[in-house]
Amino acid sequence: MAVYTSVPAEALEQFLARYETGPLLSAKGIAEGVSNSNFLVETTTGRFILTLYERRIDPADLPYFIALMEHLAAAGLPVPPPVRDRDGNALQRLEGKAACLIQFLPGVSVSQPTAAQARAAGEALARLHLAGADFTRTRANGLALPWWQATAAELAPRMDEIEPGLSALVLRKLDDVSAGWPVDLPKGTIHADLFPDNVLILGNRVTGLIDFYFACTDLFAYDLAVLHAAWVFPPDGSAPLPGHESALFEGYEAVRPLSPAERRAFPVLAQGASIRFLLSRAQDWLAPHCDALVQRKDPLPFARRLEHYARLA
Amino acid sequence: MAVYTSVPAEALEQFLARYETGPLLSAKGIAEGVSNSNFLVETTTGRFILTLYERRIDPADLPYFIALMEHLAAAGLPVPPPVRDRDGNALQRLEGKAACLIQFLPGVSVSQPTAAQARAAGEALARLHLAGADFTRTRANGLALPWWQATAAELAPRMDEIEPGLSALVLRKLDDVSAGWPVDLPKGTIHADLFPDNVLILGNRVTGLIDFYFACTDLFAYDLAVLHAAWVFPPDGSAPLPGHESALFEGYEAVRPLSPAERRAFPVLAQGASIRFLLSRAQDWLAPHCDALVQRKDPLPFARRLEHYARLA
Repeated sequence: MAVYTSVPAEALEQFLARYETGPLLSAKGIAEGVSNSNFLVETTTGRFILTLYERRIDPADLPYFIALMEHLAAAGLPVPPPVRDRDGNALQRLEGKAACLIQFLPGVSVSQPTAAQARAAGEALARLHLAGADFTRTRANGLALPWWQATAAELAPRMDEIEPGLSALVLRKLDDVSAGWPVDLPKGTIHADLFPDNVLILGNRVTGLIDFYFACTDLFAYDLAVLHAAWVFPPDGSAPLPGHESALFEGYEAVRPLSPAERRAFPVLAQGASIRFLLSRAQDWLAPHCDALVQRKDPLPFARRLEHYARLA
Repeated sequence: MAVYTSVPAEALEQFLARYETGPLLSAKGIAEGVSNSNFLVETTTGRFILTLYERRIDPADLPYFIALMEHLAAAGLPVPPPVRDRDGNALQRLEGKAACLIQFLPGVSVSQPTAAQARAAGEALARLHLAGADFTRTRANGLALPWWQATAAELAPRMDEIEPGLSALVLRKLDDVSAGWPVDLPKGTIHADLFPDNVLILGNRVTGLIDFYFACTDLFAYDLAVLHAAWVFPPDGSAPLPGHESALFEGYEAVRPLSPAERRAFPVLAQGASIRFLLSRAQDWLAPHCDALVQRKDPLPFARRLEHYARLA
């Protein structure tokens, strides 16, 4: 959550002149996203999120992300479409950074989803998986098994600073996950980071799916495992809330039923998902940067999830 | 510019239930203000800025600031009025912090004001001075001469780290300012920090005067000197832009003509204003905190302004 680059109002006015948005009425830097600067921009015709891509995102991937958001929005999902300028370009440069103007969507990110909200999130993820079927671009998952192995090896000497025994836990479970990782499950376009932060909700209705900057081509059931790890546990809890858990699966399967092989693989996929978030958080935790708005997220809830999922395996 | 406290959507929904605003539609933490956390909140009936007061602000002063914003808004100035809840309270607590919900105003903060915008700012400041005439509350200026003297003494041993000779410049000019400070000029409610950041503008029209958290009871002409130091110099420039300077005075005097004594005192008042911002910025500069969004502002442009104003004296 940060604004790394300030955009003078005068520069923003010039930038918007490329578009059919009408003149600028208001612009506020918003504390959203950890890898980019975001501004909530209002013009005479609507509201937009202006994103400047700052770090952790390979500029070569931006056309994929933009095309994906356009594809999903066109398919009727509540995904904010990038706006094209008069020349048809969605990807721009502003203040020396790659930039994109994206439609604003209403809704709030809940902190403690209810079971009904978990169901809605499950349903939305399944719709996303189906809508990606005719999206032809692909992108490798950069935060998959090889990254887990490399990062676990790199962080192993220091992870016990977070909690004694954490290193051994991760290395041991990572061995199990590597040995048991499924090879033949259905795959396609996944969000790969659909935490409650990245879902806009009003009541029990999903009004927005945002932050597609980890989206890639990987196993659908892995994406569902990420969703499960993110939506059904109480704060710091080591066991899922049963009502939330069944609602999440019901929501997903109402749209895209899981195959028996996907169900069988769930414990190993979910251990993988726990390791992925445990490691990225441990990386941030052990290399704190001087930044009030990038709040370090505690890796330990994912150690508890990892242990939970391992018990299911 | 920061968000120090995160407010869960669920807590915000509960908070808004105290008001007649209607249900929450959207909330974004915004990078605005250095002493508080701000959220741009949308409900079914409008948009609001929710401010949580974090630091640098004495909670005992909040009733003054809130009453002042209400007074100025009621007088027809483009000042965002605080919103009162069903029980008539504007000052609240949220997530353990003092908080206030304030109307949203459109407009952008320009980075390089034009002469026409400087004129509009001058006019708005004069209207603010007149509108404060029947505001009966008072607040001492905590960042006036005694603070300058104490802070200059405290920072003197280190100010040359910013620029060799800076300490001697400040101490010498502060002696002149202390000796020449006017005692008998018209005083009343002043904004005391009306930089372009704190003015919302559309075209050449002022649509908002915001951030009243330095407002106090002091000399009107000192407030104009702050405005002058903030609006008429080019970036890092040591001399004002003549067209901007005359426009600023014309705008102000079209509403509230200066007395001969105020005009005579201008060079000393403006040296004081330069010292005030030089010192607060030097304080931040020499005590950097770990915070990406509180960008340290360079004290040196105010050393150049101080030298400029001293040449006029």
